[in-house]
Formats: sequence, C-alpha cells, structure tokens
Amino acid sequence: MMASSYSSSPCAACKFLRRKCNQDCIFAPYFPPEEPQKFVNVHKIFGASNVSKFLNEVLPHQREDTVNSLAYEAEARIKDPVYGCVGAISVLQKQLIRLQKELDATNADLISITHQGSISLGLGHVDHSNGFLNYPSNLSNDM
Amino acid sequence: MMASSYSSSPCAACKFLRRKCNQDCIFAPYFPPEEPQKFVNVHKIFGASNVSKFLNEVLPHQREDTVNSLAYEAEARIKDPVYGCVGAISVLQKQLIRLQKELDATNADLISITHQGSISLGLGHVDHSNGFLNYPSNLSNDM
Repeated sequence: MMASSYSSSPCAACKFLRRKCNQDCIFAPYFPPEEPQKFVNVHKIFGASNVSKFLNEVLPHQREDTVNSLAYEAEARIKDPVYGCVGAISVLQKQLIRLQKELDATNADLISITHQGSISLGLGHVDHSNGFLNYPSNLSNDM
Repeated sequence: MMASSYSSSPCAACKFLRRKCNQDCIFAPYFPPEEPQKFVNVHKIFGASNVSKFLNEVLPHQREDTVNSLAYEAEARIKDPVYGCVGAISVLQKQLIRLQKELDATNADLISITHQGSISLGLGHVDHSNGFLNYPSNLSNDM
C-alpha cells in the first residue's frame, strides 16, 4: 500500500487517540482513516508512543516499511499470543529442512540412476548452502 | 532456557524498573537477574506494562514460550529497526521458493533420464504442496 497523502480528516491514529491531527502528524501518512484496525493492532502490541519513537528512529523513506512490518507483527501476535510471527519463522524453518531433505533424496536418486545406466550428466541442482539463519531453538516443539 | 525459580535477588525486570520484586512477580520466572538484556530489549520494544499484560493473557504454562518469542522479536527489531523479524520471514520465504525451484528442476532431470534410459522408477520425492503461509507482500524488495 502506498503512503496516503495528508487529508483533512484525522488519521486513524489521531482518531483513535482522540487528538487533533496536524499536518506534521508522524502517523498520518501510514495510518489512513480507512484502515482503523492497522493502528488499533500496533497500539495494542507496541503502544502508540513506541510506534512514534520507532518512526522517528528510521529515515523517512523507511517509515512505510517500518509501519507495515510492525502491523504484520502486531496482527500475528494478536492471532497467536504465545508465538506471534516467531511461530511463522519456525514453520518456515521446518519447511526448509523438509524441502532440503527431499532435494538431497532426489539428487541421490539421480546420482544412483546415472551410475546404473552409465549416463553422464552434469548435476546442476545440488546445493547444500541453504544458508539457514539462526532461529530460536528454545521454543517448544508443540507449535 | 528453563524458567528460573524465585530467588532472593530481584529479577531483571524489577531491578531495571527499580521496584520491589515480590514472590508473585509476573516477570521473575522469565527474567532472571543474570540475563538483564532480555528485559531491556522487550521493555524497549513492547513496554513493561504490555509484556505484563501479554503474560496475564496466556496460560501459565505458555508464559515461558511467550517471553522467549517476545524477546526474539524485540532483539530482531533492535537489530533491524525497519523490518524486525519480518525480514527473517521474507528471507526464509525466498529460500523456500529457491529450494522448491531446485527440487522441481532436479525432478525434471530425473524424469528426463528415466525416459531416456527406459528405467522404471517410483519417484517418491515430488511434492508441490509446500504449504506457504500468507506472508507480507507489501514490503519493498530491497530487504
């Protein structure tokens, strides 16, 4: 979503906080009045003053992405109060491990067949550099 | 990390907030004094009162996982103020797509070879049900 331009109606944040929305409102470009839930969510999880602080700590051109990632995290935390979006990271990590195992098995099949049939083939798809990041290992496995 | 039992020294949260740490302190089991940074991080991103509220909204046996996922999110947001741990989700999603493409290509090679060599083989590793979750698509691609 593009950042909305300033309009005469108060932004979703100022409307929720019942305060006057000025032309220099830090929230207005990222919390348009037609998306009230976006602000409600980030306010519930991070608090309005923290969101304002985060926005002031990044460059203006980074603010839209900052708000969108905060809104995503907030929504994930509301849907899953225990794991939030860290649950999604765990799911993705497990999918990556499963897919890597499948790829390894398929490559092993391919190597086995080329040896059986004495077919020479350049195997261009073997890649063990999956570059996993360092994800939380201290969460329960019952996610 | 196991939740620490209550000890006579104030927990990291009460020490940081300069308040008395009672036996019924909601933070004490999850913020031991020897890990001060864990509380500093969640306080900076979510605020102590929000963390306390989140802990009271989940069941007691879910509190340790809740604190650990909050601590993970907070650390990620401090390291990457624009994307936080949503950046990790984006990276993982891209890795999954790349790995799925590799697997598809390897399976295509395998099928091609078995046709060339007229070798009958049960392909047990083709899986297109990668079950991607619905990840944010509205973030910039320059992450």
